[in-house]
Amino acid sequence: MTATTRTRLTPEQRRAQLLDLGVQLLATRSLDELSIDLLAEEAGISRGLLYHYFGNKHAFHEAVVQRAADDLIAQTAPPVDGAPLERVHASITAYVDYVVANHEGYLSLVKGAAGGSESIRAIYERTRSDMGDRVFREHPEGDIVPDTPATRLVVRGWTAMTEELVLSWIAEPNGVSRDDLVAILVESLPALVGVTQVAPEA
Amino acid sequence: MTATTRTRLTPEQRRAQLLDLGVQLLATRSLDELSIDLLAEEAGISRGLLYHYFGNKHAFHEAVVQRAADDLIAQTAPPVDGAPLERVHASITAYVDYVVANHEGYLSLVKGAAGGSESIRAIYERTRSDMGDRVFREHPEGDIVPDTPATRLVVRGWTAMTEELVLSWIAEPNGVSRDDLVAILVESLPALVGVTQVAPEA
Repeated sequence: MTATTRTRLTPEQRRAQLLDLGVQLLATRSLDELSIDLLAEEAGISRGLLYHYFGNKHAFHEAVVQRAADDLIAQTAPPVDGAPLERVHASITAYVDYVVANHEGYLSLVKGAAGGSESIRAIYERTRSDMGDRVFREHPEGDIVPDTPATRLVVRGWTAMTEELVLSWIAEPNGVSRDDLVAILVESLPALVGVTQVAPEA
Repeated sequence: MTATTRTRLTPEQRRAQLLDLGVQLLATRSLDELSIDLLAEEAGISRGLLYHYFGNKHAFHEAVVQRAADDLIAQTAPPVDGAPLERVHASITAYVDYVVANHEGYLSLVKGAAGGSESIRAIYERTRSDMGDRVFREHPEGDIVPDTPATRLVVRGWTAMTEELVLSWIAEPNGVSRDDLVAILVESLPALVGVTQVAPEA
């Protein structure tokens, strides 16, 4: 940080920089452990100044989680080109790597360790929905997933499954490699979509 | 309750009866809304007596959630006889009906609205694992699901997917019938197991 803090930053730039630091700290600790005191110490500035930027601890947590969610969405964006399943493959690979790199903070969000905060829970739910809906937005021609009520449900399920699988795999890989994990997740999408086409439709 | 309260019950029987009432109240409200006061009013006994049975509010919540979890496990037990997928079908049908009938309380557990209580979270996780592991215990011959690290992962994912699908479906059925939902969930299991057999193994 030494080089950048010497430059005069606008308050918006300074706030963004502090949020990035918050996101970085969240990678290896839970949200409960991410205090204003810790951020102040790591940033080398006063607690008072942090309260000036963020108002209170809850608003600070909300802003960090929103920034982390934006990062996750950006980092897992599928490439613009390529065959549909290859693009899903790239996106899922990025997701697995993101969860591995940011395990503690991610886990604390999933577990709702945010102490039942509705606004943070809402950011989490919106991010998860966004990542699922991307399957429909990114493939408007419906080449992987036709857009029906049943496939919408199944894609939500696939998103939940993906999260659970990655967290279970990090906890106990049991010899399953990262590439196998990614292959299972990618192939699960067309397999589950296939089920909606076999099962009786409403 | 009138008939039974006239009978002299042992403290254990009385406690179990109070827990059943708690589980019943939890069906239509969140855990946060299930207070000792409410139970006292519904049971027609004093708050003091409830504290005598349960110690404190947290222990009361823990006992109610454990009882609800035991009920869920019992009600979704697959029948002893029948073809493997028919038994999964019966179990999933019972699960869907259980979540519909106990929606508020179930949702509050899933959302971690328990205010981040570790012990209640642990009951929830154990119940979910149990329901997934049943696929292996109930089919020791491996006729649906061979027992490998990859299928263990996939079954955990399928359990998470099942929960997410049922809750999403209750929130917005969008014309998907209960029978279609059950068919999708049941058929997803062999479809996902099939994926582990196609994907490269470690």
